[in-house]
Amino acid sequence: MPEQPNIKRTEIRDLGEFGLIDRLTAAFPLQNESSVKGVGDDAAVIDNGGFMTVVSTDMLVEGIHFDLMYTPLKHLGYKSVVVNVSDIYAMNATPRQVTVSIAISNRFSVEALEELYDGIRAACTHYGVDLVGGDTTSSLKGLIISVTAVGQGEKEKLAYRSGARPGDLICLTGDVGAAYLGLQILEREKQLYLSNPGIQPDLENQQYLVSRQLKPEARKDVIEMFAQNKLVPTSMIDVSDGVSSELFHICKQSGVGAFLEESGVPIHPEAQMMALKFGLDPITCALSGGEDYELLFTIDPSDVEKIKYLPDIYIAGEITPAADGIKLHTKGGNIHDLKAQGWQHFEEENLN
Amino acid sequence: MPEQPNIKRTEIRDLGEFGLIDRLTAAFPLQNESSVKGVGDDAAVIDNGGFMTVVSTDMLVEGIHFDLMYTPLKHLGYKSVVVNVSDIYAMNATPRQVTVSIAISNRFSVEALEELYDGIRAACTHYGVDLVGGDTTSSLKGLIISVTAVGQGEKEKLAYRSGARPGDLICLTGDVGAAYLGLQILEREKQLYLSNPGIQPDLENQQYLVSRQLKPEARKDVIEMFAQNKLVPTSMIDVSDGVSSELFHICKQSGVGAFLEESGVPIHPEAQMMALKFGLDPITCALSGGEDYELLFTIDPSDVEKIKYLPDIYIAGEITPAADGIKLHTKGGNIHDLKAQGWQHFEEENLN
Repeated sequence: MPEQPNIKRTEIRDLGEFGLIDRLTAAFPLQNESSVKGVGDDAAVIDNGGFMTVVSTDMLVEGIHFDLMYTPLKHLGYKSVVVNVSDIYAMNATPRQVTVSIAISNRFSVEALEELYDGIRAACTHYGVDLVGGDTTSSLKGLIISVTAVGQGEKEKLAYRSGARPGDLICLTGDVGAAYLGLQILEREKQLYLSNPGIQPDLENQQYLVSRQLKPEARKDVIEMFAQNKLVPTSMIDVSDGVSSELFHICKQSGVGAFLEESGVPIHPEAQMMALKFGLDPITCALSGGEDYELLFTIDPSDVEKIKYLPDIYIAGEITPAADGIKLHTKGGNIHDLKAQGWQHFEEENLN
Repeated sequence: MPEQPNIKRTEIRDLGEFGLIDRLTAAFPLQNESSVKGVGDDAAVIDNGGFMTVVSTDMLVEGIHFDLMYTPLKHLGYKSVVVNVSDIYAMNATPRQVTVSIAISNRFSVEALEELYDGIRAACTHYGVDLVGGDTTSSLKGLIISVTAVGQGEKEKLAYRSGARPGDLICLTGDVGAAYLGLQILEREKQLYLSNPGIQPDLENQQYLVSRQLKPEARKDVIEMFAQNKLVPTSMIDVSDGVSSELFHICKQSGVGAFLEESGVPIHPEAQMMALKFGLDPITCALSGGEDYELLFTIDPSDVEKIKYLPDIYIAGEITPAADGIKLHTKGGNIHDLKAQGWQHFEEENLN
């Protein structure tokens, strides 16, 4: 009756999240005609004969993805929808529905869950999506939220991770690194509070950075601009794990290399300053921080006129042949290999 | 920084699962034309202009829904897909895709997860669905599996919970109560093992009951028979929480009552015998046990010829006007109110 001993034991952290997903899902061939795209993009693509149905899912776990000590439940509900609709936008599609499943311990009151759902509702209203289902169950410990977003896309306009070609321009929306620095501030204030509960948190001057962490937004506006300007990116991904990690995904799946310009990576002045205050390299925060929910995409160079006058879009480099590797051209003039450092939750030792 | 005290604190167990869902999702009006059916059926229904897209999601939590002491990971993977495709069949639709998200602690090795995915793959092959996405993350404690199933249905053939009318016949597939009794056997053997680890579990003579708990199947065959016989049930639901609970859902959403015949509720002889051995009333196990993943449906009386010669379908009563209530006609000739007792996970005291 007890678990059978495994002859071989490979630790999950030895593979990492993406290695684990590759290994677990390798032997799943697609059987249905309607399954256009399976594992390995921001979302799955399903053809039911009308619009393409685009499906994405994400799980948020208390103690791993969020800390309720500084995350208001309403913000958490909002963010849990945002991270999923962001994946739908990253396919150049429009999110329409979400399902929300939660597992909760009895520590949570009905009123606390209503706050969570207030945030979910605010995000549904803002992004024009409908809550159409879910599951509600108990957990032995903490709060787990699993959201699935369903969107509509047009077959010819979907943007996959696999479409980048040498010569394409690498573009980024908004600015990156701020959400990571917001998290550092919240963690610092939490530690101060724990060591002296009488102290008041000092967040007043860091509203921008903190709000980027606690209440991120998905780039609905950018997808709408693409439609108005008849632009279809050759590839696209949303920045959840960090620009470097996302660029690696695009390069791997497109079979290309990249030449990224440090000077082209948009960093907010407050993020720049706060990084230095923490003794961190701003460009490292920008490239490896993650949770920005900006869009990283590539366009055919002939489309450059279509984005030139659009607000909040920055050209940050060029796609190269695979043999050229994935390089960062620093402001100081050096060229070195880009490192992909996404979130590595599995490195933590939580043997439960 | 700490959680703000709530002025009012309502415990989740005071509402129950369905009361909680009603309260949390009440203020979510549908905004999109494509959202045909939202919260409150076995699955959401989305119209993207081709086939109707049917979406259902379920979360399984270690320690709540399964006990790894007697649940092989492969069976668990299989069951996690089954419970979701069962919801799609309960819409009279065909499952096509699943996404599988898991949260895992470092207690699990890669090999253990491969066993889980072996079971997921076996179910995908058996039910003809494709694994098209998911999320893999850490948990602080235990294993959590969240599966979303996506199916195709034809607009005129979907079966909702809301379509039953007085005079319709109540039908049940297979037999009910066996999964619940299988669980009782496994729990008994676990307790014996815990009190004396040298003892061997005695499951040999209860293979049917135990397999109904550990490796349930969804009624793909029944949906295929419906199509062959051009039968569209007036309402349908799958039996996950128990026949009584499911019949209450149909009655509530259809605005009708029901007259259930105890003699029409199919109980397997082994379930009958095992219930008596445990000192339980067989009909109570059959009506309140749950996890059978059989189909409870209603048909127009003029369709009775279409099911009369089909195997494994039992007529178990009749839909009545709402004013007549929901009644059970016992074998002894008594008529009394049916009680809905689904799983009540929230009654447990797990304040974490």
